[in-house]
Amino acid sequence: MPSYTAPVKDMQFLLHEVLKISEADIPGYSDMDEGFTGAVLDEAGKVATDVLAPLNAVGDREGCVLENGVVRTPDGFKAAFDTLRAGGWMALDAPEEFGGQGLPYLMHTAVNETFVSANMAFNMYQGLTHGAVSAILAHGTDDQKARWLPKMVSCEWTGTMNLTEPHCGTDLGMMRTKAEPQADGSYQITGQKIFISAGDHDLAENIVHLVLAKAPGGGEGTKGISLFIVPKVLVNEDGSLGARNAVSVGKVEEKMGIHGNSTCVMNYDGATGWLLGDLHKGMRAMFTMMNEARLGVGLQGYAQAEAAYQNALAYAKDRLQGRAVTGAENPGGPADPLIVHPDIRRNLMEQKSFVEGARAFTFWGATLIDRHVRMHDAAADGLIGLLTPVIKGFQTDKGFDMAVQAQQVFGGHGYIEEWGMSQFARDARIAMIYEGANGVQALDLVGRKLASDGGKHVMAFFDLVKAEIKAHEGDARMKGLVEPLKVASKQLQAAGMYFMGQMKTPNAALAGSNDFMHMMGHVCLGLMWVRMAAAAYAALDAGAGDRAFYEAKIATGRFYMARQLPACGMHLARIESGAETVMALAAEAF
Amino acid sequence: MPSYTAPVKDMQFLLHEVLKISEADIPGYSDMDEGFTGAVLDEAGKVATDVLAPLNAVGDREGCVLENGVVRTPDGFKAAFDTLRAGGWMALDAPEEFGGQGLPYLMHTAVNETFVSANMAFNMYQGLTHGAVSAILAHGTDDQKARWLPKMVSCEWTGTMNLTEPHCGTDLGMMRTKAEPQADGSYQITGQKIFISAGDHDLAENIVHLVLAKAPGGGEGTKGISLFIVPKVLVNEDGSLGARNAVSVGKVEEKMGIHGNSTCVMNYDGATGWLLGDLHKGMRAMFTMMNEARLGVGLQGYAQAEAAYQNALAYAKDRLQGRAVTGAENPGGPADPLIVHPDIRRNLMEQKSFVEGARAFTFWGATLIDRHVRMHDAAADGLIGLLTPVIKGFQTDKGFDMAVQAQQVFGGHGYIEEWGMSQFARDARIAMIYEGANGVQALDLVGRKLASDGGKHVMAFFDLVKAEIKAHEGDARMKGLVEPLKVASKQLQAAGMYFMGQMKTPNAALAGSNDFMHMMGHVCLGLMWVRMAAAAYAALDAGAGDRAFYEAKIATGRFYMARQLPACGMHLARIESGAETVMALAAEAF
Repeated sequence: MPSYTAPVKDMQFLLHEVLKISEADIPGYSDMDEGFTGAVLDEAGKVATDVLAPLNAVGDREGCVLENGVVRTPDGFKAAFDTLRAGGWMALDAPEEFGGQGLPYLMHTAVNETFVSANMAFNMYQGLTHGAVSAILAHGTDDQKARWLPKMVSCEWTGTMNLTEPHCGTDLGMMRTKAEPQADGSYQITGQKIFISAGDHDLAENIVHLVLAKAPGGGEGTKGISLFIVPKVLVNEDGSLGARNAVSVGKVEEKMGIHGNSTCVMNYDGATGWLLGDLHKGMRAMFTMMNEARLGVGLQGYAQAEAAYQNALAYAKDRLQGRAVTGAENPGGPADPLIVHPDIRRNLMEQKSFVEGARAFTFWGATLIDRHVRMHDAAADGLIGLLTPVIKGFQTDKGFDMAVQAQQVFGGHGYIEEWGMSQFARDARIAMIYEGANGVQALDLVGRKLASDGGKHVMAFFDLVKAEIKAHEGDARMKGLVEPLKVASKQLQAAGMYFMGQMKTPNAALAGSNDFMHMMGHVCLGLMWVRMAAAAYAALDAGAGDRAFYEAKIATGRFYMARQLPACGMHLARIESGAETVMALAAEAF
Repeated sequence: MPSYTAPVKDMQFLLHEVLKISEADIPGYSDMDEGFTGAVLDEAGKVATDVLAPLNAVGDREGCVLENGVVRTPDGFKAAFDTLRAGGWMALDAPEEFGGQGLPYLMHTAVNETFVSANMAFNMYQGLTHGAVSAILAHGTDDQKARWLPKMVSCEWTGTMNLTEPHCGTDLGMMRTKAEPQADGSYQITGQKIFISAGDHDLAENIVHLVLAKAPGGGEGTKGISLFIVPKVLVNEDGSLGARNAVSVGKVEEKMGIHGNSTCVMNYDGATGWLLGDLHKGMRAMFTMMNEARLGVGLQGYAQAEAAYQNALAYAKDRLQGRAVTGAENPGGPADPLIVHPDIRRNLMEQKSFVEGARAFTFWGATLIDRHVRMHDAAADGLIGLLTPVIKGFQTDKGFDMAVQAQQVFGGHGYIEEWGMSQFARDARIAMIYEGANGVQALDLVGRKLASDGGKHVMAFFDLVKAEIKAHEGDARMKGLVEPLKVASKQLQAAGMYFMGQMKTPNAALAGSNDFMHMMGHVCLGLMWVRMAAAAYAALDAGAGDRAFYEAKIATGRFYMARQLPACGMHLARIESGAETVMALAAEAF
């Protein structure tokens, strides 16, 4: 049975020694001193370990069951949900006027990681609600905010996002769900939505569905799409619950993983809904939440890898098998622990260096979101817009790979469900697909974000990498970290230049989009490792007590640079081979 | 619901235009003309499509159930097993004297691919039997052969392999199962074995377990291990079934995949067994079957990828989503099919070029086994010994990756079990683990096979690659194929040289073993693509009718060279970074 312990020390290192948040100029950050964040993370870690992790396997085994039109969640989910609600964990970064604690998004992100690592399927019930709250905050009228937010912030009511239909997911212009305006200002929503996470369940009294639908007069394609609030149960004027709305669950899907979360087919049969935001501007309303939602999925990628890694590491230290090639390390025992073997060590180091790098990347991304939301910093907004597809696409691809590698450490036991390693891989798999499949992320990065605002944001990114390299160039100790980053970032620039030279053959850029996304992911994690290693050297120079902790950070960074950044050269070669071999076959010649 | 069609045309191309088998000097090959192999493969394909593929999802859903000590297989498995038995499919390459058809191992391999693609879990029941038959053929006395083989060749009785125990898998020296000699020459076997595929089931009247156990007097470690024949039901002198042996099923494991195959905990409580082969030479007896068994698992890797690819391709042609960036290709429809998008095309080409390359590699490997078995060709034996860990490790790692990529083409539907794409990935996952986890394959390759017989076999391999390159160097059309292979094979040699220079720091070689295995895999598939492209050009030059088929082969080969061989540079850089960053952290510093 897997276990989970929140990596509070690693998080604190990031918050206070790398990001130095309490010195940052972002409103609210100065309150977040080491004592405060430590206390919050310790408490969150306890909830994750004691309440959520024990239910992870239960959720996987039992799944969600549709009975008489109502979805029943796995044993223990309701009690755990109540515990988290009572602890105020759902509302960390929501505004205080609606019952939240008004903390930065960064703090939500750190806490969220521990919950996602412990139980991803469970955490989605509140995760989706968080997204819906953000949408209503950004686009709701004052009345709508007053009506919906207090109950949603507390998770008495939960939220969902309804985009996909059976025949269209990525291409929402083909959407068929209709919204008919009524005399009282409401709309009647009719259509079928699929893949609705947390679409129905028994954890909350009401569910507030945010539904994309076509209202008359908007024109073809995505232009005619608007966003609607469609509650499961209608709400009376006094705020009490009224009649059931014409919303029903058609089916709960059997999935590869995240069995503890109900993925529903939702049928809207003339359900009553209210316009959220501007008419025919529904896509824009959805997109304002995208950076946040995709950063949250990118977090799922490495959070599952973290949980899998913790268990693989424990197994590698415990399981006795074979002898070290350099001589027995456990001569008194029948064999040495797995961790003595170089290929097991390579595997573990790949996991560790990815997870810690991705955490740094994600936390940094969260500060950019805070900077945008709390300071209206357009540069930060542009930068996080550029980085979001990388955080989502790269981190979920790699997060899944690492969960699979963690499973491999267990040998045959990794394949047996009882040991729990399969679940990490199966759960992590969805993050590569939802919130925009990773191919769509790569397309967004190369097809839109690179050139947006005249390439301003990607230039700013490269300037930032250059500045970081320059800052450490005189430091001989940093050479093994800085040099590989220099090489990799030049390769990334060369790939960008190649795309620029192919403006007239857009297939050439798009055929390399997946490689570019991965290349940029490596450069970003390389950048993070330079920052972390520099912070670790600074701590050592200042005579910090726990030398082993800081030395391990530096060693892990050096591993990432030596063993992972060489992927950039491969990606560049692939990209520069162009579209010719990719597109050579006609569809019928396959 | 996924479907499957046997790739008979691709197989025939390999057999007759690339390997040119009926011209080969291997005994039995001259009988295998195009008409004969085509007829066999067409028939096998029908069985795969009509009998096995429809049961694949059934097996996954129902799994195997232990009831009153007996394992019940999924609905329809028994009838299908009887159909295959009646068709003689179990006995293609077994000797005619025991009821087989005496065909080459190559023919078994080609037929086996279609069965594994259609239903991997089902096929394991006969696959394990095939392995047990080989062991008895190689090591059994005449009496043992006469007693066990006829029923096993026909699959009236099936076979298993019992190696792993709860505390040891890779490190069999720690084995605890004991064999006590009895006065009548038999042994009493006592102990517990785990992960026994096809350990019990209702498909056959008897199950012949081959069990590794320690008999007295053999000494410590693996030296004391012997191999025993331990039937589920004892067999009377006249060949009829007698009393139940003291063998029982402790448990059927819940696994990530291959649910249709019963993975059992087997308990031997003083069960009667008979020594197979020499006393205390059990490991050697097991190892004589290893090349064959591991080649079979390497086949599972690409065979699952093939099945997944066929369905991903069909979906990519069918599903309408978005528009080609170069202008609508389906202007009359609401959107273009997925296959117009460059990143989908990249994904499909990666799958296609891997599967076809791996099939060529595996078929070539099968000819080396035939050459060894039928001609006692020591060079062929040495070469297949070298290539076996690559076929097993590289092909199963990549096969799984490709099944995951195929799933990705389906977007959200790929995650829903009903669509069947998850099963391909879940089933493919085991092939990376069993028959020696892929880390062990890499260790075998770098730690043993490279240097075995003074490096003779790896030299022979490089000579073979050089000769192939030289043969086409004058041909301008082959440049895009030959040049990348030249670069990659030089990189592979450089990696080998690096290892040679690190004789005194074995960790340096072992830290790069996984990279070396993958690098060598790419070089082998590159070699195969040069051969296939050359054969395709030859056919085109000879005025072959189906030009599109041969042109597609060449285009696919060019893709593999341009887009996959660049991985070799990355692997070399990783290898040359040595063990330092891999081993820097002490176990307690993780």
